[in-house]
Amino acid sequence: MFSDRVRVQRMLDFEAALARAEGRVGVIPAAAASVISEKCRAELVDFEALSRAAVEAGNLAIPMIKQLTELVRKENPEAARYVHWGATSQDAIDTGLVLQVREALRLIEGGLERVSDAVAMLAEKYRDTPAAARTWMQQAIPTVFGLKAAGWLDAITRHRVRIRELQERVLVLQFGGAAGTLASLHDRGLEVAVALGEELQLAVPDLPWHAHRDRIADLATTLALMTGTLGKIARDVSLQMQTEVGEVSEPAGEGRGGSSTMPQKRNPVACAAILAASERMPGLVSVILSSMPQEQERGLGGWHAEWETLPELVRVSGGALHRAEEMIAGLEVDAERMRQNLEITHGLIYAEAVAMALSAQMGKRAAHELLEKASRKAMSERKHLSDVLAAYPEVSSRLKATELAQLFDPMKYLGMSSRFVDRVLATSKTIPKGKA
Amino acid sequence: MFSDRVRVQRMLDFEAALARAEGRVGVIPAAAASVISEKCRAELVDFEALSRAAVEAGNLAIPMIKQLTELVRKENPEAARYVHWGATSQDAIDTGLVLQVREALRLIEGGLERVSDAVAMLAEKYRDTPAAARTWMQQAIPTVFGLKAAGWLDAITRHRVRIRELQERVLVLQFGGAAGTLASLHDRGLEVAVALGEELQLAVPDLPWHAHRDRIADLATTLALMTGTLGKIARDVSLQMQTEVGEVSEPAGEGRGGSSTMPQKRNPVACAAILAASERMPGLVSVILSSMPQEQERGLGGWHAEWETLPELVRVSGGALHRAEEMIAGLEVDAERMRQNLEITHGLIYAEAVAMALSAQMGKRAAHELLEKASRKAMSERKHLSDVLAAYPEVSSRLKATELAQLFDPMKYLGMSSRFVDRVLATSKTIPKGKA
Amino acid sequence: MFSDRVRVQRMLDFEAALARAEGRVGVIPAAAASVISEKCRAELVDFEALSRAAVEAGNLAIPMIKQLTELVRKENPEAARYVHWGATSQDAIDTGLVLQVREALRLIEGGLERVSDAVAMLAEKYRDTPAAARTWMQQAIPTVFGLKAAGWLDAITRHRVRIRELQERVLVLQFGGAAGTLASLHDRGLEVAVALGEELQLAVPDLPWHAHRDRIADLATTLALMTGTLGKIARDVSLQMQTEVGEVSEPAGEGRGGSSTMPQKRNPVACAAILAASERMPGLVSVILSSMPQEQERGLGGWHAEWETLPELVRVSGGALHRAEEMIAGLEVDAERMRQNLEITHGLIYAEAVAMALSAQMGKRAAHELLEKASRKAMSERKHLSDVLAAYPEVSSRLKATELAQLFDPMKYLGMSSRFVDRVLATSKTIPKGKA
Amino acid sequence: MFSDRVRVQRMLDFEAALARAEGRVGVIPAAAASVISEKCRAELVDFEALSRAAVEAGNLAIPMIKQLTELVRKENPEAARYVHWGATSQDAIDTGLVLQVREALRLIEGGLERVSDAVAMLAEKYRDTPAAARTWMQQAIPTVFGLKAAGWLDAITRHRVRIRELQERVLVLQFGGAAGTLASLHDRGLEVAVALGEELQLAVPDLPWHAHRDRIADLATTLALMTGTLGKIARDVSLQMQTEVGEVSEPAGEGRGGSSTMPQKRNPVACAAILAASERMPGLVSVILSSMPQEQERGLGGWHAEWETLPELVRVSGGALHRAEEMIAGLEVDAERMRQNLEITHGLIYAEAVAMALSAQMGKRAAHELLEKASRKAMSERKHLSDVLAAYPEVSSRLKATELAQLFDPMKYLGMSSRFVDRVLATSKTIPKGKA
Repeated sequence: MFSDRVRVQRMLDFEAALARAEGRVGVIPAAAASVISEKCRAELVDFEALSRAAVEAGNLAIPMIKQLTELVRKENPEAARYVHWGATSQDAIDTGLVLQVREALRLIEGGLERVSDAVAMLAEKYRDTPAAARTWMQQAIPTVFGLKAAGWLDAITRHRVRIRELQERVLVLQFGGAAGTLASLHDRGLEVAVALGEELQLAVPDLPWHAHRDRIADLATTLALMTGTLGKIARDVSLQMQTEVGEVSEPAGEGRGGSSTMPQKRNPVACAAILAASERMPGLVSVILSSMPQEQERGLGGWHAEWETLPELVRVSGGALHRAEEMIAGLEVDAERMRQNLEITHGLIYAEAVAMALSAQMGKRAAHELLEKASRKAMSERKHLSDVLAAYPEVSSRLKATELAQLFDPMKYLGMSSRFVDRVLATSKTIPKGKA
Repeated sequence: MFSDRVRVQRMLDFEAALARAEGRVGVIPAAAASVISEKCRAELVDFEALSRAAVEAGNLAIPMIKQLTELVRKENPEAARYVHWGATSQDAIDTGLVLQVREALRLIEGGLERVSDAVAMLAEKYRDTPAAARTWMQQAIPTVFGLKAAGWLDAITRHRVRIRELQERVLVLQFGGAAGTLASLHDRGLEVAVALGEELQLAVPDLPWHAHRDRIADLATTLALMTGTLGKIARDVSLQMQTEVGEVSEPAGEGRGGSSTMPQKRNPVACAAILAASERMPGLVSVILSSMPQEQERGLGGWHAEWETLPELVRVSGGALHRAEEMIAGLEVDAERMRQNLEITHGLIYAEAVAMALSAQMGKRAAHELLEKASRKAMSERKHLSDVLAAYPEVSSRLKATELAQLFDPMKYLGMSSRFVDRVLATSKTIPKGKA
Repeated sequence: MFSDRVRVQRMLDFEAALARAEGRVGVIPAAAASVISEKCRAELVDFEALSRAAVEAGNLAIPMIKQLTELVRKENPEAARYVHWGATSQDAIDTGLVLQVREALRLIEGGLERVSDAVAMLAEKYRDTPAAARTWMQQAIPTVFGLKAAGWLDAITRHRVRIRELQERVLVLQFGGAAGTLASLHDRGLEVAVALGEELQLAVPDLPWHAHRDRIADLATTLALMTGTLGKIARDVSLQMQTEVGEVSEPAGEGRGGSSTMPQKRNPVACAAILAASERMPGLVSVILSSMPQEQERGLGGWHAEWETLPELVRVSGGALHRAEEMIAGLEVDAERMRQNLEITHGLIYAEAVAMALSAQMGKRAAHELLEKASRKAMSERKHLSDVLAAYPEVSSRLKATELAQLFDPMKYLGMSSRFVDRVLATSKTIPKGKA
Repeated sequence: MFSDRVRVQRMLDFEAALARAEGRVGVIPAAAASVISEKCRAELVDFEALSRAAVEAGNLAIPMIKQLTELVRKENPEAARYVHWGATSQDAIDTGLVLQVREALRLIEGGLERVSDAVAMLAEKYRDTPAAARTWMQQAIPTVFGLKAAGWLDAITRHRVRIRELQERVLVLQFGGAAGTLASLHDRGLEVAVALGEELQLAVPDLPWHAHRDRIADLATTLALMTGTLGKIARDVSLQMQTEVGEVSEPAGEGRGGSSTMPQKRNPVACAAILAASERMPGLVSVILSSMPQEQERGLGGWHAEWETLPELVRVSGGALHRAEEMIAGLEVDAERMRQNLEITHGLIYAEAVAMALSAQMGKRAAHELLEKASRKAMSERKHLSDVLAAYPEVSSRLKATELAQLFDPMKYLGMSSRFVDRVLATSKTIPKGKA
């Protein structure tokens, strides 16, 4: 979608629509409009000559328009007079870009919906499956795997809303002529702009925005936010997939995740690709942001810095989304291993549960300190925390053995987990589907 | 607003509101709630001890809660049991941050309104003041200074909308306990969350978002978009203020923009500060974005990278806004010099106007090439373009001398300029004012 | 070291040295030099007035020089004539910065040496301690813990060399007067520069470098490279410290790494701080790099963007180094757990060893495929890989039972590990100590 | 040089050299080595199949080695056993990259030399050509154009040294097998490494550096430093080339810098390209830096983030260098216009010269204030500064009319300019030429 060929075709789409719009409102002859419109096809372009000329010209549009004019001239010399009438090269480049972005955003919207569905399925299916919550990369308290997925889903839902709202802000025509006044069309500029917006199904802005790139930067940052969440999901999956954790696994497949030398390997290749994307986006976004202060009516350098960077941002984020979709849809979940991992601390993961149970009687701080002491003892003596505690009179005087035992049952210490999962699932269903 | 003292006070506001909420719904005794709430005052905190302890503890909240507990204990040992009941340190840190952000966004909204008003005044006042449009840092065609200002205004209006919408997305409670289940409150977690949201006037999210930082990153990027536009304005002003251009000037003032060695200097100090801000934001944003993939239920490093970076983002963008407001409100505009600068190319700035006039008869490309040739001749022979053209039979046969002369009048080649200015002004007036 | 007070003192050190240098070569009266030099003390400065004036002036140096001039005038009006003689504010600001950097780099050099010593001790002590090597976050083959430490040491040694070489490139005088010609000193400029360089013990460059910031950017990137390695070490430690891995642990300490709610917690707080630093540096570096293209003889915005960013870069990297030193020196290593973790895959970690043993007879690819098949079978049937293999005739026909058993001994499959450790240790000892 | 084809060829070069090295030391049969070596040719590779398989495999090397093994097998099944013997895919990928980098650095070294020569020519030719120095984008004092060029040259010389030193640090073999122990080669690992280093003419490091990326990051930052200086040069040229300044101009050429609509345009297309490069590098560098903390023995995501980013860094910086070379070599300089621009301030540019002349008698501060007053008067009354000053008794009592007049001669206020130019030229000649 961001190949050179498509890039040129979208600029030609602009030129064709411009001709038709101008023909329609009578600024150029209808016959000319028709011939021009017909010749706006990327397959007629000599791409090699185009690349060569672009270096000297400073952009792709100028030599492309020359080629187009030549093509039209061969067919109808009169019509050739009206190619690119009233427009400037940036009009073609920016509007062409907006058309590419429209296509990309529809695909991204669709991808996000599928990721949302796949994550929602995990949240529902594992709504009551206990697993260790981990903070600072240390086991913390019990949770359910469905809540981890619900956290992912909650963020994905926000990104779906963002992508939807973004489309209104960014799918906007660029048409200002040489320097944003449309002076070459005299008093017909706005009329042509409106007709051109109709042709391309793009909104007509209050004025041309050649050197104001906040819309473009908005696109870049919104995609980066989404990719950041995908990176968070991949981070979680890769941590849970470690040999020593083994709670989830990327989908298996012939030739997938193997090693050139280690036969047992099944590497998290989708995680790697998604994490790589989430590490690349911030730098690419910073390029777009730092190129915003563009000079006067058309920038020098800043605009040019966007040309390779913006397509790359779309490619990288779109690629991450694609890998995430496939990874999540095929994720293998080992609920049994999750359960086992809750036991490897010999009860330490339940320290908060016990502390809270004692807090009401002992006060929060005393209970906390008692449990700190007991936890250290359990670790150094390699005992189960419940055994250490049972031997403390401060505990046994307050909790019966059965009460104490219950505090070491993850199912008894899940708080709002299932309610939270339900809330997130409900909200995710309220987002309307995109058009893709 | 982002001093250590305010940071701590906002976390204490969270602790106070938590106690009140829990007292209200009956999770802790009302009397305890009242004592705790009273002690949540930054002036009671020993900041030096806090800083020291924070290094070991890993964050500010843990030692702050210890100090608070001690303060409460001295007053009422029973109440001390219920300090920070059911919460985790990140709940206090993140919600405290959201409260700081709320204050900051209201100030920014107010600042943007004032910048909007000041820019609108320029757009209106110079709606018909001709000036050179410059593309690629070269004079291009005539425009009006009001259109330059309208371009700034158009972007500022979009930022006002963005800042407004952002508030709905970002002003959200963080409250999840140890790892996002609120398990320590058993089945009362959501009830407490709702009461806490009411106390703080913050929305209650579907679930706690400890390791999902897209809301924070959304704040960062939105501020960076705004600062990018301020940078663009400063870029334009600094270029127009160059000794050789002299069309605008930053407001004068005692001691302002002087040099330690050059007595004649009047440096664009506001431009420098704003441009510096627009160069700093992209890097700071990239930190926030690259720290998004946070591990599991609470991240390691990524979250910590936000702590200094986010306040800095708010400070830098807020500072830029403040300097922009003062610079634009006091901007000195030299309309006469703008007019003179239209003449320094000896007519070359009107080359497009002439080309378009000839295009209808000669075709666009032939006219373009003729003007290229004439422009080169005018430059090399240091003649006025109109004189060169008048000597060409291709021109004189098509344009009368008076017609040709009219093509060199900027007021005759402004296209949609005033219409564009009017459209932008109209839209800017539709944005409702903020609450600041 | 990068407080406002020190910043101002270093600029005053420049002014004092300038006066002495000019007194020495006879450009200003010796008596004036002496009075000026005496007054260059930060404790005489009114910092509040300074901050206020700096906003208008555009930098700190201009109002500081005014205050200094006033202080001198009170003592000796004649001497006041010669304050800041021939210099520009950037001379004071940049040279002051270089003096701060000199101090910082010596501390960093010392810190790196201590980190180097602590890491070298780990490499030596655990030179023969088997542990799992992990690639793509999956167990790969056996290695020794000492080799992991040697990898860290190898990189630290390179950073020691880089920091050393950097000092030669960056500890350079800035002295050019208004715009780099030293014209205000007529034909004495170079002579004063040389004397000034002697006073400050700084190299004199071929010409002033006001708008050429590659030296500054070199400092920033070199510190970021170092912090990247510290981040890699912290990443490794945090992964090995996970509850499910448990091979190393940050040093314990009263109040260290606790949680406000979970009594059993011992969080990797040093890792968090170091990783946060390594996430912040790239964005800060990008600010310095993107502000390099500074305009003409003194930049607008780019230079100003450095003012807060560069001290932050030094602080963040210096802080990371300090935390790393303390973390590594006190690192708790559990060699027994490392050994246990080698067994949790039921032999899969030895798949490469077996494959290589069979390769010579079966060919690399056939052996690889055989082991892939056996690994899948071991996993799905929860058997030990050696048992699976023993049942294959292709294996038993080629390897005796004792030969096969030996392939599952980590000590027999360590390759060059100890040689590599020794090589790195030897090189690390060749780096001369710094002056700190 | 960074096409997919070359990338694959360089990995094949690694495989060929590995086979030859292993054949030479007797680890694999000499005959096998010879067949393998012959098949390591990119033209034998099926690139489409490679791309498809790489997605699943997670990298290019794994499927490439499979194809290579197949090619060898067809020729000699026995030899196929020894393809990629003892190596891991990262060995091929990283060493292949280093080989590409070697080629690139030689080209860059050559390009820098040509830029150096072209800039040196400007510095020499315009060593005594007066021009305005500009600080904060305002005219400051007189300088010579040769000094501007000497500033560029001084930085270019430093980059030549950096690129030279970088080669020693970065042109290093990667060879560690599965996880850096070379265990699959038993006790022959180091011997093979040494032979392999000889084959490829690369240094052998103390140990494999799979997850330690400081060398790679060093390359990235060094290229960014260079590009930052090129950006500074382009910034200067673009400012001096503005319509209103007109002191220099990019080389002219058919189709160069034209506009699709404005016939008079001659846009600074090389400046735009170079500035775009200098805006892109910082973000790309930040990706490399933030991906440094790679996990354990091989990273997940961080390493993968390098794969597209590093080639892009080389391409972007190399492209900027190429454009700079051509721009500087053909730069048109208008010394006459430089002279004229010194006069447009009506003497204000000489304010410092006059102030210094009066300082010795009046004191620095009084003289400065007098000139501030006179400058304001000259501006507001549109008089020449010398006329304003001549009317002041404080001036006329101290300076004769002829003395005053001399202070307004740029040639009399150039300070060390020519000495500085000479120093820089001399140093630039001491740098030895590269091998390219």
